[in-house]
Amino acid sequence: MGSRLRANAKAELRFIGVVERVDEYESELRIFPAFHSGLKGVGEFSHLIILYWMHLCDNEDDRGTLLVFPRRHGVKVEKGVFACRSPSRPNPIGLCVSELVGTDGHVLRVKGLDALQGSPIVDIKPYIPRADSFPSAHVPEWTKNGPPT
Amino acid sequence: MGSRLRANAKAELRFIGVVERVDEYESELRIFPAFHSGLKGVGEFSHLIILYWMHLCDNEDDRGTLLVFPRRHGVKVEKGVFACRSPSRPNPIGLCVSELVGTDGHVLRVKGLDALQGSPIVDIKPYIPRADSFPSAHVPEWTKNGPPT
Repeated sequence: MGSRLRANAKAELRFIGVVERVDEYESELRIFPAFHSGLKGVGEFSHLIILYWMHLCDNEDDRGTLLVFPRRHGVKVEKGVFACRSPSRPNPIGLCVSELVGTDGHVLRVKGLDALQGSPIVDIKPYIPRADSFPSAHVPEWTKNGPPT
Repeated sequence: MGSRLRANAKAELRFIGVVERVDEYESELRIFPAFHSGLKGVGEFSHLIILYWMHLCDNEDDRGTLLVFPRRHGVKVEKGVFACRSPSRPNPIGLCVSELVGTDGHVLRVKGLDALQGSPIVDIKPYIPRADSFPSAHVPEWTKNGPPT
């Protein structure tokens, strides 16, 4: 491919599971049978990075949105979708660091996952602080109001 | 879709840019013209989460791999791909928290991106410590050897 990649290039995403159940405290992720063996060792980690597909935003309107008002943060100025965590974006991939509460075979119970019931799961990666944790990363003031993302 | 999603469901990923240049110190990400306005406000953050497509692993062999030996970490026991950061996985999406060094229009200069030159970019999200930073997340001992991921 190299850096001469065509601007309209695409790829195929395959769903590995689904957010089966969501309640006030935790979410259950069911991994599809074809991918079960990929879970070996997941239970050694306390936190996982869950990539999921924000399926309700998989339409041309949301995928064509590039500027939004982050109203949940009280922002009345437009921000680019790459400068916020809006579900409307060219690829509606949600990313959430979640605490792994327990596993039951191919079902993972996690806390803190901001995904709707029925959201397909795209990938699961172990959270590794020396790669992923930057507690003093700088953020603009507006991100400090309202929910974390 | 709901939780009755078919196990083989797929989605379409659209590339928003490309890793244009990689050297010892930093990488340059060029965002395609159609997505430029999505960058508004990105410069307010010190760190970004870069999701990229590990294009050299976009083949059936790598996408069908579910168990690997994390040899870079000196591990001789097979781990599931969802328990490590192997590029071989059902969806070859790389995730890297990178320091934003500078922007020049639609080119972002970042440090610490573990992506090859020519890798398509899938998404850019601002890194927000209160959502993304878990310095005391537990990891197994083997992850402490070798490179961070």
